Amino acid sequence: MSKKKVGIIGATGYTGSELVRILLHHPEVEIAAITSESRKGDRFSDVHPFFRGLVEMQLVSIKDIESLDLDVVFLALPHGVSMDFVKDHAEKPYPIIDLSGDFRLDSAGTYEAWYNKDHVYPKGIEDAAYGIPELFREEIKGKKLVANPGCYPTSAILGLAPLVEHNMVEPNIIVDSKSGTTGAGVKAKAATHFPNVNDNFKAYSVKTHRHTIEIEGTLNKKGEEDLTIQFTPHLLPVDRGIVSTIYAKPKEGVDTGRINEVFRDYYKDEPFIRLTDQPPAIKEVRGTNFCDIYCTYDERTNNFITISAIDNLVKGAAGQAVQNMNLLFDWDETAGLGRVPMNP
Amino acid sequence: MSKKKVGIIGATGYTGSELVRILLHHPEVEIAAITSESRKGDRFSDVHPFFRGLVEMQLVSIKDIESLDLDVVFLALPHGVSMDFVKDHAEKPYPIIDLSGDFRLDSAGTYEAWYNKDHVYPKGIEDAAYGIPELFREEIKGKKLVANPGCYPTSAILGLAPLVEHNMVEPNIIVDSKSGTTGAGVKAKAATHFPNVNDNFKAYSVKTHRHTIEIEGTLNKKGEEDLTIQFTPHLLPVDRGIVSTIYAKPKEGVDTGRINEVFRDYYKDEPFIRLTDQPPAIKEVRGTNFCDIYCTYDERTNNFITISAIDNLVKGAAGQAVQNMNLLFDWDETAGLGRVPMNP
Amino acid sequence: MSKKKVGIIGATGYTGSELVRILLHHPEVEIAAITSESRKGDRFSDVHPFFRGLVEMQLVSIKDIESLDLDVVFLALPHGVSMDFVKDHAEKPYPIIDLSGDFRLDSAGTYEAWYNKDHVYPKGIEDAAYGIPELFREEIKGKKLVANPGCYPTSAILGLAPLVEHNMVEPNIIVDSKSGTTGAGVKAKAATHFPNVNDNFKAYSVKTHRHTIEIEGTLNKKGEEDLTIQFTPHLLPVDRGIVSTIYAKPKEGVDTGRINEVFRDYYKDEPFIRLTDQPPAIKEVRGTNFCDIYCTYDERTNNFITISAIDNLVKGAAGQAVQNMNLLFDWDETAGLGRVPMNP
Amino acid sequence: MSKKKVGIIGATGYTGSELVRILLHHPEVEIAAITSESRKGDRFSDVHPFFRGLVEMQLVSIKDIESLDLDVVFLALPHGVSMDFVKDHAEKPYPIIDLSGDFRLDSAGTYEAWYNKDHVYPKGIEDAAYGIPELFREEIKGKKLVANPGCYPTSAILGLAPLVEHNMVEPNIIVDSKSGTTGAGVKAKAATHFPNVNDNFKAYSVKTHRHTIEIEGTLNKKGEEDLTIQFTPHLLPVDRGIVSTIYAKPKEGVDTGRINEVFRDYYKDEPFIRLTDQPPAIKEVRGTNFCDIYCTYDERTNNFITISAIDNLVKGAAGQAVQNMNLLFDWDETAGLGRVPMNP
Repeated sequence: MSKKKVGIIGATGYTGSELVRILLHHPEVEIAAITSESRKGDRFSDVHPFFRGLVEMQLVSIKDIESLDLDVVFLALPHGVSMDFVKDHAEKPYPIIDLSGDFRLDSAGTYEAWYNKDHVYPKGIEDAAYGIPELFREEIKGKKLVANPGCYPTSAILGLAPLVEHNMVEPNIIVDSKSGTTGAGVKAKAATHFPNVNDNFKAYSVKTHRHTIEIEGTLNKKGEEDLTIQFTPHLLPVDRGIVSTIYAKPKEGVDTGRINEVFRDYYKDEPFIRLTDQPPAIKEVRGTNFCDIYCTYDERTNNFITISAIDNLVKGAAGQAVQNMNLLFDWDETAGLGRVPMNP
Repeated sequence: MSKKKVGIIGATGYTGSELVRILLHHPEVEIAAITSESRKGDRFSDVHPFFRGLVEMQLVSIKDIESLDLDVVFLALPHGVSMDFVKDHAEKPYPIIDLSGDFRLDSAGTYEAWYNKDHVYPKGIEDAAYGIPELFREEIKGKKLVANPGCYPTSAILGLAPLVEHNMVEPNIIVDSKSGTTGAGVKAKAATHFPNVNDNFKAYSVKTHRHTIEIEGTLNKKGEEDLTIQFTPHLLPVDRGIVSTIYAKPKEGVDTGRINEVFRDYYKDEPFIRLTDQPPAIKEVRGTNFCDIYCTYDERTNNFITISAIDNLVKGAAGQAVQNMNLLFDWDETAGLGRVPMNP
Repeated sequence: MSKKKVGIIGATGYTGSELVRILLHHPEVEIAAITSESRKGDRFSDVHPFFRGLVEMQLVSIKDIESLDLDVVFLALPHGVSMDFVKDHAEKPYPIIDLSGDFRLDSAGTYEAWYNKDHVYPKGIEDAAYGIPELFREEIKGKKLVANPGCYPTSAILGLAPLVEHNMVEPNIIVDSKSGTTGAGVKAKAATHFPNVNDNFKAYSVKTHRHTIEIEGTLNKKGEEDLTIQFTPHLLPVDRGIVSTIYAKPKEGVDTGRINEVFRDYYKDEPFIRLTDQPPAIKEVRGTNFCDIYCTYDERTNNFITISAIDNLVKGAAGQAVQNMNLLFDWDETAGLGRVPMNP
Repeated sequence: MSKKKVGIIGATGYTGSELVRILLHHPEVEIAAITSESRKGDRFSDVHPFFRGLVEMQLVSIKDIESLDLDVVFLALPHGVSMDFVKDHAEKPYPIIDLSGDFRLDSAGTYEAWYNKDHVYPKGIEDAAYGIPELFREEIKGKKLVANPGCYPTSAILGLAPLVEHNMVEPNIIVDSKSGTTGAGVKAKAATHFPNVNDNFKAYSVKTHRHTIEIEGTLNKKGEEDLTIQFTPHLLPVDRGIVSTIYAKPKEGVDTGRINEVFRDYYKDEPFIRLTDQPPAIKEVRGTNFCDIYCTYDERTNNFITISAIDNLVKGAAGQAVQNMNLLFDWDETAGLGRVPMNP
């Protein structure tokens, strides 16, 4: 059978290069086009030299993809740009997997409140499935538009979903997250200038990070009562990876001793969730689509603590996008997602 | 006037070398002896080659210090070893500043519960002052024994003290801390093997770290009601520095809008506390005795958040020890503590 | 057709875990046994937790492999230990690929001079092929014993071979190499204690590193006159990767302008050599079996400069070992060696 | 006696902030003005927040300094901008210490060839002393203009000067240098974007770096015959520090066994040169004005090898500038230059 033809819209960023890294060896697809408006005409390996000898295809413009008879399209575009593409291509036959934040929230109003930008295509919000397969597998299948989750939300939601869905926790929750610098994008800026990050560490966007509402909104679809998430991101002097340390109070009467069983049961048969008996480390998931989760209850303080670790560019972006594609086409959900971490 | 004679007991670790770094240029003291049982006879610069040409004095044994007429002694010894020294030297005329955990807790029983070790000198616990000058300045003055605080506790306590002392917070508090590797000591071990730390990040000692009880015990001396601290340490791929991100609920009726004023007032005139209007970064305090603190209130979630940053080897160890010495001798509290961070 | 059965002797080090990472997805083989004398009975994922859920097989003792009917064996053992295994198993039907230094030099005498150890199996030295396929492809095929090259030598030899084989350079050559810390092994020691490596850099083993003689000896098989290599290794604060900067004088009369052509011609059709027009970076080859090489001639100084970059654990160890296995079994030389670097 | 008034021209870069770090505690001077055209009106601590509470003085424009009766001026300006300042202020009473490359070379023609820029003030080149005190102490004293050396040249020249001045080496020399990222400046750019540097390493500016001619030109003032330097810089994933590994051939008849004696003799009484018996590490000099040098002769290869380590921002920039100021005013050459490295 011939391979499905994939289009990757947006070549210059980290999600673009990760999509190519993963899809290049995917057994069911071929990369038919990679677009870049700023670099069109250049080869992909001109933009990402580590692909030299591997991916020499020429970058094209978005308007060149129409003739290609694509089967599926990934959007590796900035927030605010993706929605234009989706609006213009909503009637095309191919499904779209959007890695931006444009279709993840529950309404145009919420989007506008947290992204300070008008939404040009509210219908897309209604049509989209939120692409965490472990929570929304059935909703994703058959969709034309998948809103691929944010990196921090993926780690937070997977670390909380079992507790929320079983109505085990009080609605005030702390999510203290630490991320590598690739989450800030490929573009050089003061915040990611090497001497500003190396041997350094700090919090940022305290109280105001956009992923707060994505975490809340998504978990609220699963829980019985609305949550309030205190989300604090920090910048780690590492390339990849997120660790989220999550604190929640058990509801009264909850059998706190069952926390491990609840997680085990919730994630049984999930190929990309690994429950651990030690706090997980970034390098144990690096380069893979795994989310490693540790959960425990502290009797002394009466807190649940869960700690999750992902690679922000894989399970937090390109890998989960490919997992969603596998789901859309009813392929083995692990196809193309080689699972051995690079460590060290 | 002649300089006071300092003895440093324990030369091989990081606190030992930091004490020498700081005391070498202190205007009021001279280093009269540095001891090491394992390296006695070697020069200090044999153990720490970066001191070559600067500190070539020979290391001696503890038993050689008796003849030296010391004026003050710093103990840079492991937990469990310090208490032997203090027991044996309690009647000496010089004050002792102990950088270990042996005299920080409120009773031998508490010590034994958290350190799994019998305490050989409970009287020292009664006699000691807990050496955070910002909180216990008057208690420290005139003491013969100062229990120099732990690194994590220093960052947590300074970030919480104003709220606790003003009875502004509910007793369940989250302290999510991140530390550089020097906190784990000078000795090579798997946990600090470069490939295990570099580009990596994880939590450790969840629910069980000894500093938990030190934070609780100390804050309880200041507050009206007993606190429960959920303390989670994490290992950063950096050499030095701790950031503690602290979450607390306001008590009902508290004027949450006054948080900045409360901190400003509490720490006014403190030479080593800097209140910041952005989350502080490790490199902004590196090499110095500063504790930078950011505090805020989130209306949406009804949480106080305070974030503190220190250099674990300075304000978290050797620098605070020197600050305590300055206090004991009634010198300018900043003497010897050059205050410009090395950045980058 | 059934898969070939592989035995990996030595599980606890980095070369062991890299072999498993690569072989797990190799289309022609299955891992039949992984041995460890110190950890036998434990699961492989107990030793390397990032393999949890992926490789749970139990480690066995060397003496347990006899019954397994293995088709090929990789030795991931320390120098001095490998030769015992080879001596004891030389008559077995399977070929052995030895990743240690025990069979790389040209005589037992040379070995003893540089390794300060008697060689227990000199016959192995005669029987072994030196496993750089790009230089010794025909010699390797059909061999029962392959001496897999050292990491530094791989980078130096591949950067020099075209010039040496064409007799283009004077015999005094400078190889200034910089390596990540995994080259120093999995065991924690002072030299690789995080605070000793992070934000630091230095040379080591100046004039005396064992790889000097491996580089010289190997190149001398290819050149017309004996070389003298000044090899200086340095320790980089990175996990993986080697960059070797190589300086050589052209022989009189050599057409220096042909250097690029000479390299292009020498390495044409080589799937793992990429010639670059900019100095190569470690992360452009990380996780792969590539050796990227930049070569140039400086008219002003009359020097050839070549710069090579490899991943020391892949092309410098486990990857090249698998490439050698592919050659032994006449499989596609790239089989199992997924070629996209992880970057960043 | 009143303190001398210092002006620092250029506040935003790393050399500016290092000058302030050092001069703030210098016993003989006070900082009278710090200028920045782009940030004038802001406080110094707005630009470098780690100075908050320490240096709150307002930045002024260059044209505001005329009224201040300055005693000495440091130029922390980019190449090409310094010469305009020097031209305009050459008749002022104060001496100028220029940290740029504008007055380091031996003629306007050489400058124009390597910097691709016309020189606006060739007379300054004639008037300036090249500010390495260890080599040009007498020339510097009494000068109105000091060309403070480049970072790489400082490390290379100090590592070679004894051999060159004693006419011990052949004129073809290899300088293989590795530098931290602060050498590339404070401005964020792709080359210093964290994910491009972290866990990475590569050479750059092979054959073409401007410091080549500065090294050659300076050493040629000391030697009997003109040298040719093959200088290859590399970018280390560290903040600060340069290690230069230098290879030179002894001239025939040279007593190679005397190399240590020659270095010891040449640098005796130098407060900032430390000769080491192991290859020096960056962190052994970090934050200080030391240059640590290791020298050896390899009989096997007939090469001299010297390895030098400096902090590029201190001995390679601001520290050496202060050392030059001390010399100009006939103060203790170590004044203000606290000498204990921060390690780790």
